[in-house]
Amino acid sequence: MKPKINVAIVGYGNVGRGVEQALLNTPDMNLVAVVSRRPNISVNSKVPVLTIQEVVTWKNKIDVLLLCGGSATDLIEQTPFFTKYFNTIDSFDTHARIPEHFNNVDSIAKAHGKVSIISVGWDPGLFSLNRVIAESILPNGQDYTFWGPGVSQGHSDAIRRIPGVIDAKQYTLPVESVMADIRAGNCPDLSTRQKHKRDCYVVAEATADLDYISKTIKEMPNYFSDYDTTVTFLDQETFNLKHNRMPHGGFVFRTGYTSSDHQHVIEFSLKLDSNPEFTANAMVAYARAAYRQHKAGNSGALTIFDIAPKDISIFDNELLRKNYL
Amino acid sequence: MKPKINVAIVGYGNVGRGVEQALLNTPDMNLVAVVSRRPNISVNSKVPVLTIQEVVTWKNKIDVLLLCGGSATDLIEQTPFFTKYFNTIDSFDTHARIPEHFNNVDSIAKAHGKVSIISVGWDPGLFSLNRVIAESILPNGQDYTFWGPGVSQGHSDAIRRIPGVIDAKQYTLPVESVMADIRAGNCPDLSTRQKHKRDCYVVAEATADLDYISKTIKEMPNYFSDYDTTVTFLDQETFNLKHNRMPHGGFVFRTGYTSSDHQHVIEFSLKLDSNPEFTANAMVAYARAAYRQHKAGNSGALTIFDIAPKDISIFDNELLRKNYL
Repeated sequence: MKPKINVAIVGYGNVGRGVEQALLNTPDMNLVAVVSRRPNISVNSKVPVLTIQEVVTWKNKIDVLLLCGGSATDLIEQTPFFTKYFNTIDSFDTHARIPEHFNNVDSIAKAHGKVSIISVGWDPGLFSLNRVIAESILPNGQDYTFWGPGVSQGHSDAIRRIPGVIDAKQYTLPVESVMADIRAGNCPDLSTRQKHKRDCYVVAEATADLDYISKTIKEMPNYFSDYDTTVTFLDQETFNLKHNRMPHGGFVFRTGYTSSDHQHVIEFSLKLDSNPEFTANAMVAYARAAYRQHKAGNSGALTIFDIAPKDISIFDNELLRKNYL
Repeated sequence: MKPKINVAIVGYGNVGRGVEQALLNTPDMNLVAVVSRRPNISVNSKVPVLTIQEVVTWKNKIDVLLLCGGSATDLIEQTPFFTKYFNTIDSFDTHARIPEHFNNVDSIAKAHGKVSIISVGWDPGLFSLNRVIAESILPNGQDYTFWGPGVSQGHSDAIRRIPGVIDAKQYTLPVESVMADIRAGNCPDLSTRQKHKRDCYVVAEATADLDYISKTIKEMPNYFSDYDTTVTFLDQETFNLKHNRMPHGGFVFRTGYTSSDHQHVIEFSLKLDSNPEFTANAMVAYARAAYRQHKAGNSGALTIFDIAPKDISIFDNELLRKNYL
């Protein structure tokens, strides 16, 4: 029996709790601690709750640290910091800053002999993987990514900042008819508006001007103005009842020709009841890869592109060939 | 500019011609030769046609040899043979013999310092990859593979061996209603009959007993008796017109729970106009990986599970992170 991989969670929000839950289905890993800024929280799994100052003295007790904070404020600083002491995994998803984040983490990981796999999840993550594999196999083609049906946290936040809004949730919906067209082998040129629409559910203050809120949402640049957007007002009770989940998902297509009259469609899709729990599960699988890469003597920052599929599987290579190939 | 990867094709059937075609879309590779038992064939790309005896003297001119023969009679012997001299790729797809084939090729590859990636294609291949990745991320779940709509060469051959049959094509069809059920998050237990049906198009001799042929097909053990099978007779001209293609494809699903009330569905599907051309394109992408693995000093047999996605991409790692992550 191989020794278990000792892991700890940094940040006990939705993703952190998702990792804790995922580890219940992960027999080759042990959760040994949760790290939080709030020392008094109680965690389901009854492991010690450590401060950042405390966890850095646990270097020999933790094989991989799963960093479960947000990209904007937490991970951009936390991943470089913790990678001085531990192998790490994060789900950094600010696409435009990934190269910068990678380079920061890479130099620290190499200097300290650690492995850090950044931007693990589904997009960036499994969607990225599918885009690269599909384009490598069908170079003469085109790809399409659709998101949803699902909740966009960023768009929901943007609505909540409008004066008079108490609570809000925004659903991104792919346009089904366009996806059917692609699935049938067509390669349409699509505007932003043609690919997705946005449905908003809003709880407003009793005295709020609903027309103002609706107009402000629909005309909001970047977030809504380029999309067909619907706004529905509802009371807090109905909102809590009907919009208390965080489903998400999406579709990655590639259509391509291998000869003048032979076309192919590769489709990958996710339908997720809980975006943070799925992301957490991906992070746990890639924590296994970080552990193995470190054991093999590697160091530096890595992404999902650098990891062979065998390295995220609990099964050994011989069994994979026998049962999965 | 990096030097191009020099490749050669062994076997100029559907897959071999597919590789030749794929290389037209592959700017980092050069086709330098075709190897065939038939020395007088003319090849579209005008490269030399070599015998097996000749090609083994080309060790320094070929980086990767793409073996495009059939599994049953060709690859089981050809891959071990050619791996003494070259890095190789094959699409060996006799599932039950993969471990044996892997071990044969592995010992020869290691002894001769070569890399061989075996069983490249879509199943085994991309479907295998998706099964492993999806199970690693959703360990508490179930997976389903459906094949088709598509032509099964083996089943078509089996029909052609029936006395009175001139020509035949068999289409494997996944049962759509069952796939819709899985896509909606359900995890049904399915019999063979519930998953696929089989449609057969048969050209019979003028004097043939059609009832006998139909009955023989439908009752054929292993091939048809466990499936709902339809048999349609047609004349050779209609057959040639309507059934002259080799489409295939299929679906890999995994449904799994990350917590008691959060379920997820991962779906991967292929819709292929030409099974051999798609397989050929996958082989070309993995030839890139074989070349890079060999350059990095590795040797031995590998499968799609051992290859990091970056190694099949024509783009460098920095560009992949910037544009695809």
